[in-house]
Amino acid sequence: MIEHDLPLHNWQNTLEEISNEIRPLLSKGKVADYIPELGTADKQAFGISISLINGSEYYVGDALTNFSVQSISKVFSLTKAFSILKDDLWKRVGKEPSGNPFNSLVQLENENGKPRNPFINAGAIVVADCVVSNTEDSLNLIIDYIRELAGNKNIQLNQAMLQSEKSFGHRNAALAHFMKSYGNIESDVDEVLDFYFGHCSLSMNCQDISRAFLYLANHGVHPRNNRRYLSASQAKRINSLLLTCGTYDAAGDFAFRVGLPGKSGVGGGIAAIIPGLLSICIWSPGLDKYGNSLAGVKALELFTTKTGISIF
Amino acid sequence: MIEHDLPLHNWQNTLEEISNEIRPLLSKGKVADYIPELGTADKQAFGISISLINGSEYYVGDALTNFSVQSISKVFSLTKAFSILKDDLWKRVGKEPSGNPFNSLVQLENENGKPRNPFINAGAIVVADCVVSNTEDSLNLIIDYIRELAGNKNIQLNQAMLQSEKSFGHRNAALAHFMKSYGNIESDVDEVLDFYFGHCSLSMNCQDISRAFLYLANHGVHPRNNRRYLSASQAKRINSLLLTCGTYDAAGDFAFRVGLPGKSGVGGGIAAIIPGLLSICIWSPGLDKYGNSLAGVKALELFTTKTGISIF
Amino acid sequence: MIEHDLPLHNWQNTLEEISNEIRPLLSKGKVADYIPELGTADKQAFGISISLINGSEYYVGDALTNFSVQSISKVFSLTKAFSILKDDLWKRVGKEPSGNPFNSLVQLENENGKPRNPFINAGAIVVADCVVSNTEDSLNLIIDYIRELAGNKNIQLNQAMLQSEKSFGHRNAALAHFMKSYGNIESDVDEVLDFYFGHCSLSMNCQDISRAFLYLANHGVHPRNNRRYLSASQAKRINSLLLTCGTYDAAGDFAFRVGLPGKSGVGGGIAAIIPGLLSICIWSPGLDKYGNSLAGVKALELFTTKTGISIF
Amino acid sequence: MIEHDLPLHNWQNTLEEISNEIRPLLSKGKVADYIPELGTADKQAFGISISLINGSEYYVGDALTNFSVQSISKVFSLTKAFSILKDDLWKRVGKEPSGNPFNSLVQLENENGKPRNPFINAGAIVVADCVVSNTEDSLNLIIDYIRELAGNKNIQLNQAMLQSEKSFGHRNAALAHFMKSYGNIESDVDEVLDFYFGHCSLSMNCQDISRAFLYLANHGVHPRNNRRYLSASQAKRINSLLLTCGTYDAAGDFAFRVGLPGKSGVGGGIAAIIPGLLSICIWSPGLDKYGNSLAGVKALELFTTKTGISIF
Repeated sequence: MIEHDLPLHNWQNTLEEISNEIRPLLSKGKVADYIPELGTADKQAFGISISLINGSEYYVGDALTNFSVQSISKVFSLTKAFSILKDDLWKRVGKEPSGNPFNSLVQLENENGKPRNPFINAGAIVVADCVVSNTEDSLNLIIDYIRELAGNKNIQLNQAMLQSEKSFGHRNAALAHFMKSYGNIESDVDEVLDFYFGHCSLSMNCQDISRAFLYLANHGVHPRNNRRYLSASQAKRINSLLLTCGTYDAAGDFAFRVGLPGKSGVGGGIAAIIPGLLSICIWSPGLDKYGNSLAGVKALELFTTKTGISIF
Repeated sequence: MIEHDLPLHNWQNTLEEISNEIRPLLSKGKVADYIPELGTADKQAFGISISLINGSEYYVGDALTNFSVQSISKVFSLTKAFSILKDDLWKRVGKEPSGNPFNSLVQLENENGKPRNPFINAGAIVVADCVVSNTEDSLNLIIDYIRELAGNKNIQLNQAMLQSEKSFGHRNAALAHFMKSYGNIESDVDEVLDFYFGHCSLSMNCQDISRAFLYLANHGVHPRNNRRYLSASQAKRINSLLLTCGTYDAAGDFAFRVGLPGKSGVGGGIAAIIPGLLSICIWSPGLDKYGNSLAGVKALELFTTKTGISIF
Repeated sequence: MIEHDLPLHNWQNTLEEISNEIRPLLSKGKVADYIPELGTADKQAFGISISLINGSEYYVGDALTNFSVQSISKVFSLTKAFSILKDDLWKRVGKEPSGNPFNSLVQLENENGKPRNPFINAGAIVVADCVVSNTEDSLNLIIDYIRELAGNKNIQLNQAMLQSEKSFGHRNAALAHFMKSYGNIESDVDEVLDFYFGHCSLSMNCQDISRAFLYLANHGVHPRNNRRYLSASQAKRINSLLLTCGTYDAAGDFAFRVGLPGKSGVGGGIAAIIPGLLSICIWSPGLDKYGNSLAGVKALELFTTKTGISIF
Repeated sequence: MIEHDLPLHNWQNTLEEISNEIRPLLSKGKVADYIPELGTADKQAFGISISLINGSEYYVGDALTNFSVQSISKVFSLTKAFSILKDDLWKRVGKEPSGNPFNSLVQLENENGKPRNPFINAGAIVVADCVVSNTEDSLNLIIDYIRELAGNKNIQLNQAMLQSEKSFGHRNAALAHFMKSYGNIESDVDEVLDFYFGHCSLSMNCQDISRAFLYLANHGVHPRNNRRYLSASQAKRINSLLLTCGTYDAAGDFAFRVGLPGKSGVGGGIAAIIPGLLSICIWSPGLDKYGNSLAGVKALELFTTKTGISIF
């Protein structure tokens, strides 16, 4: 019902402009190092990929170089859990922004072990439990699911990353045990964490991710394989969650500056959606103080400014 | 750049359908009574008004009956303050969702007296101070400003409401004094509160409000008087704030169910915007547990479902 | 039932030893300056006064120089309120340590406007309301009460301090309005604050204060005028509150290092009690990070170490 | 330096009076059942044992019946850790009351994984780590240590309790992992928890416990075996911690009503100390809302009232 005349836009040109303007910012972010394996990322790396619903694709820079997807993968596990549990999912995880970074445990404590939303770590761990408790061989299943969404059978787990996550995952273990004490984790804590650390440790590139997100830009049906992953209503709802909760405690600022539903990961990736038109993924490992790719957010801001696109 | 073919939709029909479906819900909400004057509202009252950018207007029910605008007026004082201070405004008030109702004072304490966003009370009081400290005869000025936006010179203060607000305004006085102790209120506390309670005590009807919001649906220019109130970028930014913070602690749920930028008031009014198309105001005094009009939110959900409209 | 052979101790000698050892510390504290009038205190000032139940008295240094009593006066207003309301007082104010400095407002919010204990500001403001709401000419009454306890008719309000307190008292005004919104302040907020700022602005010296505290060391009866101010049980209870809550967020550390019930003020005074034996007041304006007299706390630690006295 | 003429008191008579007066209260408490094994305790059980420094002992009721010591054992592991690490211990755990029950995780988060005091669970887990990381065969070592303090070689682990603790210990696991993520747990989380759950699962009776606590009443030297477990200063410091933090969030109320250093456990035991005179242990499984033995606290209040004893 909403039509865009933007498909005729010179996308390649826009991506190249952004790429040139963004270079000076690459040195300013801080590469995540709380997991040693993440600290090895190249701070000068930068890539953008866009995938239009109409099938067109464009990219610049390191868009075909793999990086660690980290929290971006939470969108895929959420999609899986939502498609399995339908609205029962919301009995176990909320739909509200979390307020601030310190609040995850506070809020769990005040709200009887029900996380605020599916994108904070506690929420994603509950979502992981929903998948683990309702499927067999869950980690392989979600990997195949993501491969299908991205249309790339070669997507692999980074085993070194996975080991690194597990060794330094005490905070996530704390969250899982804490929710288990409230009865909001059904499966064994270690099994749930294996699944969670597993999907966060996948290596993908910008093109994989912009392709994989297309079903959210297209009302639940993936335009590249014509499969329906979510109902139109469910897709709209995940997009609204991405807007209000997808970029940690900077969701308000991200909505203010970029104005698109999006999801970031501490590997430096950030994906966003223009409903009805396209999905985009940017990668730059230097993070801002909120844990979002510093250059990535700026690049998205340039993208919406240059194209005049916004949902607002 | 985004075009809607919806102007040809049978709007009147849709409003009447919603009106019929919503009737059974009117008895379920709870009329606000923390200020005695609010408690006198008629729980069976219900009205909708929509104002399209193209000049068309439709309404049903009690859309021409006055009610207390309460927090809806925060949008107008924010617009005024934003147009005066430009981006300096954000040095004094944040842009992030507040997390939960208990947090207003907690967050002020943790964040040195800078409120999370301009729509929580603390934030709106800072916005009030921004207007009071930068204009003369501020209350009359904002009333005239709102009259101009609504195109209705007869909009008046409800004096009984104003007195009621002041007598029971100890919590807002606490917020103002608290922020003053951090240096984030420039003018005298009582002056700021007079302005704040003043604009919240205005009486308007659904049609006034849907008309008044049109500049936000039209990139900052009011289509009824062709005046620019905000730049396109500023209008987009207020819309993003309305989406992430406009409906108290239910902003996530509102985005999830309705998917539009909107602002509610405890008088039972709720206004929303479809960028590029129209603004809508619904009134039903019974509130849900978050303080939003129970039937009003449901009616907006029906509106987006029936028309298929959403920003997502 | 507990007897001390300490009355034969060479008290004067002990005070002089402490005075000599403490000198180097005087420069290390930080004089309070959040109220400008407090900032004028002389950082090199230092005095100790002890008053034994048996009538003996000893002092060194600036023990006869006046300073601002500040929060020490909360003990006297609490005594007055406790003697008026008896155990009904505890319906309006709690008896538990407050946890941390940031929590005053948080806890008020979480606990419906009932302050944690009578020594945090919110609690002392409720106590002030208890006196104001149940007496006539309350400020003069409490001043006369304190004069009687200290046996000094010349104790006066410092008017410059009082004005300074009022001008910079926005945070206390915030607390009072906030509790009023929960119905836990009966009288007019301004009247309560006048009383509260009033008793905090009294000027007294170490000897006044050590004398005034004697009723707490003597089971409620003042040994200098033989009047009963509290029952033995009530005196014991105030002493327990002084131990658990009397030194802000350092009460645990104070109990650990000093091991006596005590009360500090940001004017640099700190008073303590050895039940059955004596009361002591030390003054040194430089404060530690908790707002307690840095040298005062150290001097008390030396006092209990040198005399071997402790309630533990 | 403080002398008591109380040794001539008719202790047996006092214990019997208390026992008679307390009977009606036994039905009012609630037996802990968050760990199923705890739920099997007999609510009508009640016993008191007192051990005087001079060697006299008295008891009534079920004072020789074993129960689960639970948190009372934290005093022994703290004594061990304090004697090993000396004041370095306080780099890893604080000395302040925790404020309220919800705060344990909040405060850990706000204070970088350093627990408020050694008696909240987080603090006792750090203390456990201090013992585990500095000794061999730590659980057997602490059991032998407690047997020595109590003078009873037959004290045993309740294996069923231990298994029950482990199965339902997700909240403690959460705390341990959380502190590990801040680097405040040195050993393996599971090892530390085994030690912690182990000493909490010991079965002892009132007499064992009142005997075991005697070193705290006697400045660090146990009068039954003449061994020094702590310096006089260290013993005083643990007593002050017991007073300010020993009874969960009711420490202020406990100090107010009872006025003695004490430690409770959810098994219904509660031990207290009168410095220089005696130690006492009461057992009654019904708990009040704070998790302290309801009849036990009341019995201690009667004990101090009837004997006139208090540190205040």
